[in-house]
Amino acid sequence: MIRVDYLTCPGDSGRGIGESAMEVIEVKSGKKIEFIDVSSEVRRALEKMSAGDGLCHLYVPHTTAGVTINENADPSVVRDILDALDRLVPLSGNYSHAEGNSAAHIKSTLVGCHQAVPVKGGKLSLGTWQGIFFCEFDGPRSRNLYVEYAPSSAEGR
Amino acid sequence: MIRVDYLTCPGDSGRGIGESAMEVIEVKSGKKIEFIDVSSEVRRALEKMSAGDGLCHLYVPHTTAGVTINENADPSVVRDILDALDRLVPLSGNYSHAEGNSAAHIKSTLVGCHQAVPVKGGKLSLGTWQGIFFCEFDGPRSRNLYVEYAPSSAEGR
Amino acid sequence: MIRVDYLTCPGDSGRGIGESAMEVIEVKSGKKIEFIDVSSEVRRALEKMSAGDGLCHLYVPHTTAGVTINENADPSVVRDILDALDRLVPLSGNYSHAEGNSAAHIKSTLVGCHQAVPVKGGKLSLGTWQGIFFCEFDGPRSRNLYVEYAPSSAEGR
Repeated sequence: MIRVDYLTCPGDSGRGIGESAMEVIEVKSGKKIEFIDVSSEVRRALEKMSAGDGLCHLYVPHTTAGVTINENADPSVVRDILDALDRLVPLSGNYSHAEGNSAAHIKSTLVGCHQAVPVKGGKLSLGTWQGIFFCEFDGPRSRNLYVEYAPSSAEGR
Repeated sequence: MIRVDYLTCPGDSGRGIGESAMEVIEVKSGKKIEFIDVSSEVRRALEKMSAGDGLCHLYVPHTTAGVTINENADPSVVRDILDALDRLVPLSGNYSHAEGNSAAHIKSTLVGCHQAVPVKGGKLSLGTWQGIFFCEFDGPRSRNLYVEYAPSSAEGR
Repeated sequence: MIRVDYLTCPGDSGRGIGESAMEVIEVKSGKKIEFIDVSSEVRRALEKMSAGDGLCHLYVPHTTAGVTINENADPSVVRDILDALDRLVPLSGNYSHAEGNSAAHIKSTLVGCHQAVPVKGGKLSLGTWQGIFFCEFDGPRSRNLYVEYAPSSAEGR
């Protein structure tokens, strides 16, 4: 069972015009390895921050997870990406890190923990087939995804 | 035959001082898999947007393409990168996605669809050997590359 | 012996309120391939730039290096990442680039040359286990890491 919760970042209230804004999306993964589509939650975060024109930065503060943007229409695409990552970086191998989750750390560096998407009129400029995925590589766990909206200017709000 | 067209993003005209700016570069790929050097087009987009000091964000709104920064002096570098990606993620494999372009989706996640380059005095702060490449993984197609200039401040324009 | 030097970017002095800021961290790598933890140097750069709320952009102006964020508590994590990259992209192979450092170029594209981390109250919003690593793939060399602080607004300083 996957639950995606939406939390307000403490201190976000009372922002002035043109001020920075960050929201935190709480992601509860249900499997060892999975991609969780968080596009709707990111859209909701942008609405809450009264986004205008600018950039939506996505940041994962974890070392065994990541964030990627790929097709969210056919779920077999995500399955193929997960399989390919497992093939390239096997769960068990000749790893030295004692905690046994080296594969997750390696995948995190390959996929990355930061993405950014242009925002126009408060809307994500995602392509037709693109969705935003939180990438769990060592679950199940409670995770956070930071959504930072950077207006390009005071007028951009 | 590769054609790189340059389009103005609708709605970009009439920007106020310090306002956000986005241009769209249209890239026509000519092969199934290739990297297309778009450095000059990105520079032209920055000029058009009267860029000053800030960040140049590059965003690919496609799920079977990407954007990377690497050497554009010796074309054999790009050839080696393309070959390595093909070796790591073979075109044909035990994929479940029915459209037959799973390898392209996987490469897109590995390479990424967003990059950002610092801009100083309107110029890209690329290193001596760096060029910006649109990465086609499932061509030939007509593609877009979003170039978003984010001034660090109103004074940064 | 690894030395991380900290240099002020020429022209950074005399910035006005809300103006963009960039500092350059000079990294001297001591090995062919290694990750160098630059978290403290990035923090120092942010202090120097009087960072408030915004984004810290990290940019590597080299084509045989990169920047990643991963665990800096147990050094065996970095060792496993380096080993995995070497396994995926062997130093010697059937490469066409004559300089013999194709593996480094390929790793640079896989890991990436740009990252960004949210900044709150002048502090990096890194996760508990996260550190920022300069990734040397073709050392030993003198390298630069650009640290660009983008305040989300004039009020964000």
